[in-house]
Amino acid sequence: MSFHAYAAHAKRGPLVPFVYDPSPLGPHDVEVRVTHCGICHSDVHLVDGDWGVGTYPMVPGHEIVGTIAAAGPEVRLLQVGQRVGVGWQRAACLSCELCNAGQENLCAQSEDTCVDHYGGFADRIRVDGRFAFPLPDALASENAAPLLCGGVTVYAPLRRWVRPPMRVGVVGIGGLGHLALQFARAMGCEVTAISSTPDKEPEARSFGARRFLATGEAEALRSAASTLDFVLSTVFVPQDWAGLLRALRPNGVLCFVGAPAEPLRVNVGALLGGQKTLATSAIGGRPVIREMLDFAARHEVAAKPQLRPLAKADAAFDEVRKGRARYRIVLAA
Amino acid sequence: MSFHAYAAHAKRGPLVPFVYDPSPLGPHDVEVRVTHCGICHSDVHLVDGDWGVGTYPMVPGHEIVGTIAAAGPEVRLLQVGQRVGVGWQRAACLSCELCNAGQENLCAQSEDTCVDHYGGFADRIRVDGRFAFPLPDALASENAAPLLCGGVTVYAPLRRWVRPPMRVGVVGIGGLGHLALQFARAMGCEVTAISSTPDKEPEARSFGARRFLATGEAEALRSAASTLDFVLSTVFVPQDWAGLLRALRPNGVLCFVGAPAEPLRVNVGALLGGQKTLATSAIGGRPVIREMLDFAARHEVAAKPQLRPLAKADAAFDEVRKGRARYRIVLAA
Repeated sequence: MSFHAYAAHAKRGPLVPFVYDPSPLGPHDVEVRVTHCGICHSDVHLVDGDWGVGTYPMVPGHEIVGTIAAAGPEVRLLQVGQRVGVGWQRAACLSCELCNAGQENLCAQSEDTCVDHYGGFADRIRVDGRFAFPLPDALASENAAPLLCGGVTVYAPLRRWVRPPMRVGVVGIGGLGHLALQFARAMGCEVTAISSTPDKEPEARSFGARRFLATGEAEALRSAASTLDFVLSTVFVPQDWAGLLRALRPNGVLCFVGAPAEPLRVNVGALLGGQKTLATSAIGGRPVIREMLDFAARHEVAAKPQLRPLAKADAAFDEVRKGRARYRIVLAA
Repeated sequence: MSFHAYAAHAKRGPLVPFVYDPSPLGPHDVEVRVTHCGICHSDVHLVDGDWGVGTYPMVPGHEIVGTIAAAGPEVRLLQVGQRVGVGWQRAACLSCELCNAGQENLCAQSEDTCVDHYGGFADRIRVDGRFAFPLPDALASENAAPLLCGGVTVYAPLRRWVRPPMRVGVVGIGGLGHLALQFARAMGCEVTAISSTPDKEPEARSFGARRFLATGEAEALRSAASTLDFVLSTVFVPQDWAGLLRALRPNGVLCFVGAPAEPLRVNVGALLGGQKTLATSAIGGRPVIREMLDFAARHEVAAKPQLRPLAKADAAFDEVRKGRARYRIVLAA
């Protein structure tokens, strides 16, 4: 049996049809027939070699929704035909201290869905069934796919650092940011969208933002000094980090879920007076993914997808590479 | 009535006898007859103009122990003759959101004991009585004085970020560090002392360190990779910050209680994988100061002072300026 995927054969290469024979189905593995797969900016970083990880041919895709087509003999909690989602992580040791604490995302033996494995731009994929999550019925597949990586990436730091009625800022209103606005509002926070240009304001407000700061406008950040308890940065392009830190109130936290390309210059003295924190957050463990899916279903948090056929994966990928996606492109079988 | 103090009359100036008439005793104020006053490195920064704050003549000193000599009519909880301690903070608004939450240290109207006010290198001082803390009998005055600033400065972040049996590193085994080692051990943590040279190892172990890293030795930090949950930096000289961040385990926190003179260059990507945090902490609020004093008394945490007579304040100050104090110099009346 062969799987039909789209792969880049070299750094920055086009995504072209790629047929491969999957590894044998392990006892804990499931085979998922992919119906939807989001395109995350991480996929672009991987294909373009920005992170120096992964091997070619490379099949991107780690925001996967589909149905179980086959299950290994040790798979207990999933049935053939059941709808599931798969995110950034495809396996972990499940026995270390971190896995035992539900922080599989930090396991040293974590395996990434599309780094050194073939990802979700494909008709099928095989992963450890313990990293395939049943989806609440209330979530439509095309809205749910981006939750599997983008959703948990922003939900996990919000649930860790935020409580109502904190004032939360979200930097970057894209695939991650438009979900962060929704989650933060659903958590009872007062939400500020922070974007370089004003053109996303109306939609940012529809996602839950009560205030909008266009950082390209000279006075915007200055006028926001000492107004935010938590700022979530979802971007990788340089920002006025000092200005964002000044926008924090005492005890405020600036949290990164994406790494800016340039190192930050941090003046510790400027943080000390207000006892401010720089935090980072990396996807989320299995308990947080399950909780996030349930929370999204109950609070009607949904990605706003632009659907593209899998057969047009290469053109869709280029839209994301060029920053033209609004807000998440999802490939459909 | 005149107070007799030691003041610097200019940046980096010597401390010379200085007589001044105090402001009238306000309704909430107390007058403290000073018996002991620690010399904190912040006093040196202030006198030497490193921070660009404060006016001259400047009377340093903000680790004060003494007895109440007089109390304003609204002082309810302190009696004349009672022994108290006064730290970095001499007043706050006591009505803002932060003061109401017991975080007076972050109040925008906070007043510093020896910035634009005359500090504790003196026979007497007047401060708001709500910032004078009764001392548990078990604490000797010369051991307690450094707790009022140095003690709470390290206790507050430990109590916020640490729980047993976390692995805690303390960078800099000086006035703050020798207290941090004791507090962290008393909290049930496994403690590592981190110092530039090996000469403080025996005493660091006596303060509670179970492991000692001499960062001047090439392999020391490398051998400690991924071994610490929390690192408290008490220093202002540059360190191998990237190496210290690598010494953190997943979820680890590097917390600054002193500002390094140079801005940090932070590679956010290197923090993200292990979901690491850069935190800061600034002294502590009144509830934390009271708790710290009680905790120190119960767990026999005590500064190791070198006593010097107040009349020799200038020479003692120079010892601190030159890094010769082991571990805290305390002036005695």
